[in-house]
Amino acid sequence: MGEFDLIAKYFKRPARDAVLGVGDDCALLLPAPGTHLAVSSDMLVEGRHFLSTVSPERLGHKALAVNLSDLAACGATPRAFTLALALPRVDEAWLAGFAQGLFALADAHGCELVGGDTTQGPLNICITVLGEVPVVDGRSQALLRSGAQVGDDIYVSGTLGDARLALEVFRGNVQVPAAVFEHARRRMEQPSPRVALGVGLRGLASSAIDVSDGFLGDLRHVLQASGVGAQIDIDIAINLLAAPALSTGSNADLMLQISSAQALEWVFAGGDDYELVFTAAPANAHRVAQAARDAKTRITRVGRIEAEPGLRLEGSQGLVQAEKFGSFDHFAPSVK
Amino acid sequence: MGEFDLIAKYFKRPARDAVLGVGDDCALLLPAPGTHLAVSSDMLVEGRHFLSTVSPERLGHKALAVNLSDLAACGATPRAFTLALALPRVDEAWLAGFAQGLFALADAHGCELVGGDTTQGPLNICITVLGEVPVVDGRSQALLRSGAQVGDDIYVSGTLGDARLALEVFRGNVQVPAAVFEHARRRMEQPSPRVALGVGLRGLASSAIDVSDGFLGDLRHVLQASGVGAQIDIDIAINLLAAPALSTGSNADLMLQISSAQALEWVFAGGDDYELVFTAAPANAHRVAQAARDAKTRITRVGRIEAEPGLRLEGSQGLVQAEKFGSFDHFAPSVK
Repeated sequence: MGEFDLIAKYFKRPARDAVLGVGDDCALLLPAPGTHLAVSSDMLVEGRHFLSTVSPERLGHKALAVNLSDLAACGATPRAFTLALALPRVDEAWLAGFAQGLFALADAHGCELVGGDTTQGPLNICITVLGEVPVVDGRSQALLRSGAQVGDDIYVSGTLGDARLALEVFRGNVQVPAAVFEHARRRMEQPSPRVALGVGLRGLASSAIDVSDGFLGDLRHVLQASGVGAQIDIDIAINLLAAPALSTGSNADLMLQISSAQALEWVFAGGDDYELVFTAAPANAHRVAQAARDAKTRITRVGRIEAEPGLRLEGSQGLVQAEKFGSFDHFAPSVK
Repeated sequence: MGEFDLIAKYFKRPARDAVLGVGDDCALLLPAPGTHLAVSSDMLVEGRHFLSTVSPERLGHKALAVNLSDLAACGATPRAFTLALALPRVDEAWLAGFAQGLFALADAHGCELVGGDTTQGPLNICITVLGEVPVVDGRSQALLRSGAQVGDDIYVSGTLGDARLALEVFRGNVQVPAAVFEHARRRMEQPSPRVALGVGLRGLASSAIDVSDGFLGDLRHVLQASGVGAQIDIDIAINLLAAPALSTGSNADLMLQISSAQALEWVFAGGDDYELVFTAAPANAHRVAQAARDAKTRITRVGRIEAEPGLRLEGSQGLVQAEKFGSFDHFAPSVK
């Protein structure tokens, strides 16, 4: 099978919303009047962003999900994406599975594949997503990292640390009941981009970011961009890990292997969560809660924005040094 | 040096045209009213799209150039791009050179880097370009593959086959004078996207495509999309190779190593040319010639669109079978 047959068989579908889709030198889109175009690109490499054990369906899902998560963090409505794919060889079963997972998520979000590239090379998946954000009275409704205000509540969507738990099981560092592992593995391999929540928070949240490198590390980007500090409640944060609750009724002994220090490390610095961290004025708390219900997404208030720079982790057991929780860095010395 | 320092040092510049540039989850652009957004992605892999011997400056240029060439083929005006980069390690000298070559070309075309991604992994460069095409009286001015009409002239910009000549020298298959090699090598490593020509051909050309996989192979895409055939003049086409003319006055013996069969193979199926092949009605010939002069780009009329399907190569020496000239395919059996 050649390059053009491969594209025709697995990735070319009739254009829907696009003026011109896959098959020419460029795709053509008609931007909606009164909107900003939101653009983001993410590249996935084996061993960094996924393990070789992942199914092609879940990998197709994840490759698009991590990009949709960036749109969600800006409150953008997904519109279209391009896919560039380097493959060691043509494996039709792999391609069929990958395309199935990819298109299932794309269709769920009305996000159309409009173009891309395929080439032979070490497995690499690069997706660029395009979305739209309304401009109201000349002001963009996009959620930015730079808008957090002193006194704002800090919220997190969904749960945190589960993807890291799955990774630690894969690495042989911990053992957990099968049901807990399956849940955590799905969170790692098939994350849920919080697109509906992001759209619902337009005009409500003062800032937002998606958690990809780790909660505290990504929150630090918000604090830095906004010129503020934050206090985080450890007692609430530690419960953001889904695993302990899931292990109720199964083998509780296995769960004991996860210390609270580990749980905190995974929640604060686990990474690969693709949840939203966002801030909103306390006066908006009810509308924020309603937006989360409308988006069928759990949110948890975990802290507050403060004027004093830096990050303070406080709980019933006292303070924890925030500095010990690093953020995933693709070029940190340990991976050089 | 970490991921964020790397981005800040080499790739983050103040936003110019963009509403929001590098540094948030998404970039934000304000689309120009009355335009279509043109989108294209190309991924470059070592050994496929460039040799390990290429300088980082030229690689930075080429990675963007091959994408701008897709915009040129649609007659789109470049606007912005994203860059996703997988690097085996942080090499600051390499990054500085790459960024220099990349931004020099970007600035020459007013095309702004608005976002992207960096990760550790086998060297891989993925760029997505965004451009704009006017919509006039409800009709897109984009040049498509599907518009060629019977009787149209077929034109090629610049020269063809030089990049392939350079590759054959690198492979040790031919020897040429140093000046010829340097010219050919520059054509391979630092192609000139024909953006000004593409923009100038809006409303004049009936179809266009850029030559990346090989002249005849890419022309076939136009013929197929347009439901037509073509006749190509071999005597004209063979002179599209720049090398013989450049070797005048230097060691003519070395040039003898290039047979006319080789020259024809490189012109027709060499690939990596990033020139435009386009069609236009004979009635537009003068305006097309003027558009080429305005764009300071040489164009050559090499044939004519015919109703009979297929590709006919005709010259003073008789006919040549078009079927012998394949097109580069990333997944063709020979490269599996």
